[in-house]
Amino acid sequence: MKTNLERIRNDIQYISKFNTTSGDGTTRFSYTEEDKKVREYLIKEMKKIGLNIIVDPIGNIRGKMEGKDSSLPSVMAGSHIDTVEHGGNFDGVAGVISALEALRVMKENNYKPEHSLEIIIFVEEEGPNFNFPLGGSRIITGAYSVDDLKKQINANGVSMYEAAEKFGLNPEKMNDFLIDKGDIKAMIELHIEQSVVLDELNIPVGVVQAAAGRKWIEIEILGDSNHAGATPMKFRRDAMVGASKIISKVDEITTEKAFESTVATVGKINCYPNVPNVIPEKVVFVLEIRDTDKNGIEIVKNQVEKNIEVICDKLNLKYKIKELSKTEPIIFSDKVLNILKESAEEQNIKYKRMNSGALHDACLMANVTDVGMIFVPSIKGRSHCPEEFTNYEDIKIGADVLLGALKKLSSI
Amino acid sequence: MKTNLERIRNDIQYISKFNTTSGDGTTRFSYTEEDKKVREYLIKEMKKIGLNIIVDPIGNIRGKMEGKDSSLPSVMAGSHIDTVEHGGNFDGVAGVISALEALRVMKENNYKPEHSLEIIIFVEEEGPNFNFPLGGSRIITGAYSVDDLKKQINANGVSMYEAAEKFGLNPEKMNDFLIDKGDIKAMIELHIEQSVVLDELNIPVGVVQAAAGRKWIEIEILGDSNHAGATPMKFRRDAMVGASKIISKVDEITTEKAFESTVATVGKINCYPNVPNVIPEKVVFVLEIRDTDKNGIEIVKNQVEKNIEVICDKLNLKYKIKELSKTEPIIFSDKVLNILKESAEEQNIKYKRMNSGALHDACLMANVTDVGMIFVPSIKGRSHCPEEFTNYEDIKIGADVLLGALKKLSSI
Repeated sequence: MKTNLERIRNDIQYISKFNTTSGDGTTRFSYTEEDKKVREYLIKEMKKIGLNIIVDPIGNIRGKMEGKDSSLPSVMAGSHIDTVEHGGNFDGVAGVISALEALRVMKENNYKPEHSLEIIIFVEEEGPNFNFPLGGSRIITGAYSVDDLKKQINANGVSMYEAAEKFGLNPEKMNDFLIDKGDIKAMIELHIEQSVVLDELNIPVGVVQAAAGRKWIEIEILGDSNHAGATPMKFRRDAMVGASKIISKVDEITTEKAFESTVATVGKINCYPNVPNVIPEKVVFVLEIRDTDKNGIEIVKNQVEKNIEVICDKLNLKYKIKELSKTEPIIFSDKVLNILKESAEEQNIKYKRMNSGALHDACLMANVTDVGMIFVPSIKGRSHCPEEFTNYEDIKIGADVLLGALKKLSSI
Repeated sequence: MKTNLERIRNDIQYISKFNTTSGDGTTRFSYTEEDKKVREYLIKEMKKIGLNIIVDPIGNIRGKMEGKDSSLPSVMAGSHIDTVEHGGNFDGVAGVISALEALRVMKENNYKPEHSLEIIIFVEEEGPNFNFPLGGSRIITGAYSVDDLKKQINANGVSMYEAAEKFGLNPEKMNDFLIDKGDIKAMIELHIEQSVVLDELNIPVGVVQAAAGRKWIEIEILGDSNHAGATPMKFRRDAMVGASKIISKVDEITTEKAFESTVATVGKINCYPNVPNVIPEKVVFVLEIRDTDKNGIEIVKNQVEKNIEVICDKLNLKYKIKELSKTEPIIFSDKVLNILKESAEEQNIKYKRMNSGALHDACLMANVTDVGMIFVPSIKGRSHCPEEFTNYEDIKIGADVLLGALKKLSSI
C-alpha cells in the first residue's frame, strides 16, 4: 500500500483556492467563508470513503473509519486547515491531506484495521485572529475551558465563542466532546518542518522526538511624548531609544548565553503615537522565546529582563513586563517514535530524528495520548509566508510513513 | 496699550472645545468639522474689529486692518489652528490669538497704523493627516506648487487637494493668492517654545534668531519572513534585529558625534507582518534629524547610514534609504529681531535670544519677507501631547511684545 502523489497534489492545490488574500500569500482564518468551503470539501471527501463525520461544537472535525473491534480506542491522525495572515498552502493542510490519503488507500485496498482510525481537523490552530493559537486542540483536550473562548477577542471585538456561534456551532455543548486519557490509542500529526534542517540535509522525513516550549512576554517601555525638533537630547525620555537598546541585545543573549536549541524573536512592535516628529511616549513589543529545554527559555527571559531594568534605569524610562502565554516543552512518545522509524525503515525511506521548534496540535494531544510527529521539508525553511513550499513528492513520502505507522498502531 | 489676559484665555479655551479626541488630548485636522467651527469663530471675531477677510483657495485665512497708506506693504502676524493627533491647545492657537488680541487692542485704542496689518491663519501646519507639514505656508509662499497637494494622500486615500475641494474651496485658483517678495513688509509668529529652556530658566519670552533645518529619512530593513519557533538563530535574516541595532545607536551618534543643537528621533516604526510568531521580513522607520547648523544634520545622517551598511552587511539584510523631506536651517531677520528686543525692553519684559528646534510657518515666510518669532514657555517642554500647557500670563506677555513690535513695524 502506497499513497497517491497526484491526489495529494490535487487536494492541496484545490484547498489553496480558498484564500482571502489571493496574490499575497494565503489567509484563511477559522469560521470564515473560505474555511467553510474547505470544510465542505474535506467532509465530502471523507464521506466518499465511508467515514462517519462529527463536527464538534467548536468546529473540530472528526472522521472515523470503524475498526474490526469498535470497543478499542481509535488511532488518530490529522492537523489543521487555518493559516496565519499572508501564510502558505502547506502548514496544516499537508497533515490533513496525508491522513485523508492514508485512509483512502486503506479503503481502496479493503484494509480493515482492528482499532478504528480517525482523521482530526483541528479548528483555529494558528491563532492570529483571536490571539488563541492551538485553540481547537487546547479545548478538545481540556487544557482550556470552553469559557476561555469568550475572552479571546479579535480585532473586530468578536470573541472566538461568538464567532463559533455565528458559524452555526453551539460551543456551550463542547464539554460532551472532549478527549480524555484512554479515549485515543495514539495520535500522529504530519506537518511541514518550518525550518531549514531537512531541506539543507536533503532528507525527506523527520521523526520528531520533542517540541519546544514557548513564552510570549509583552514589554512596554514608557517615556514622555514631546516635540522631536524642540526637545534637546539631554531632556528626553524617549521610549524608542530604550526599546531599541533592549531588542538589539536579544539575538546576542540567545546565541551567547542560551543553547543551540533556543530561539528568541521580537516579531511585533507598536510605537505610540508613531509619527516622525513626536518623541515616542510608549513602545510595546512581544518577546517570544522557545526551546525544547526549558532552562534555555528562562536564561533568555532573565537576561532580557535584567537588561530592561538596567537600560530603563539609565534612560529614566518606566516599563511593564507581562507574560502573555506559556507552554512547556513536550517529549513525545517513545513507542510512537519507534513505530514511525520502523515504518520508514521498512519502506527504505531516509529519516532524521529531530526536535520541533514550533508548537503543534499534537503537542496538546500529548496530554491525553501517545503522540508522534512526522516532518516533511520546507524549501529554504520558509513558512508562515507566501513563499512557503514543500515538494509534493516529499509530502507523499511522509504520507507513506504515516500510512505504515497507522497500520501498525491500528493492529492489535 | 496692553493686551487683555482674560480675552486671550477665553479665546484659547473656547477653541479647545473643537476636538475629535476629547479626553485624550486635542486633535483638529484641517478641513474637518472642528476646523470649520474654529474658522467661523475666528472670522466672526476678526470681523468684529473691522478686518477685511480673505479665505484663500486652499484655506489660509487673512484678516486685514487697513493702514493709513494702503499702497504700503502689510505687516503680518499669525500662526495655525490645526493640531497633531492627541496634541494640545496651545501649539499654533497661541500665535493666532495673540495676533488677534494685538489688533483688538489697537482697534479699541483707535490706533491707526501707517502700514496695513494682517492676521494670517495658515492651513495644515502640522501635517499628520496628509503627511504634508507646513502645507499652507509652503503653498502660499510658492515653495511648493498647488499640484503638489494632489500627491499628499491621507490614510483614507484622499489627497489634500480633494479634501480642500470637499471643504468648499477651489485650490485650482490658488496661484492668484500667492505671497511674493515685496508683498509683505515683515511677519511675526508667536509660538509656544515646545522645549524646556524658557520654563527651566523662568523667562517668559524668547526672541528667535534661527530655526533648525530638518531631514526626514525613511529606512527600510529587509530580511526573510519565517516561522519564529522553527528557524534556528543562525539561519535567520531578521529585519527587526537589524533595525533595533541601527536605532539603538542614533542617540549616541547624535550626542557624541554632532553638536549640542542637533537632535535626532525615530518616532515612527512599522514592522511586517507584525505578529509575535513570525520573523519580521521588513521593518520601516523614519529618522528625523534637526539642527540650526546643517553640518550637524549631515554628521548624524552619514554616521547612521554608515551603521546601516555595516549592520545589514553583517546580518545579511538588505536595506533602502529614502529622503522623505528636507528643509534648510533658517536665519531670521536681524531687523525684526532688534525690533522684538526693543519692544520687550521698552515694556521691561525679560527675554532670551534663542533658536527654534521646530519648523514653523514663519520659516517658510522667511523666503518672501523679513521674519521674526516670539516664543512663550512650554511647561516642562511638553508639546504635541495632551499635557501641552503654557501659562496664559506668559502668552499675554508674549502678545504684548508682539503688539509693541507690530506698532513699530507698521509705522513709517
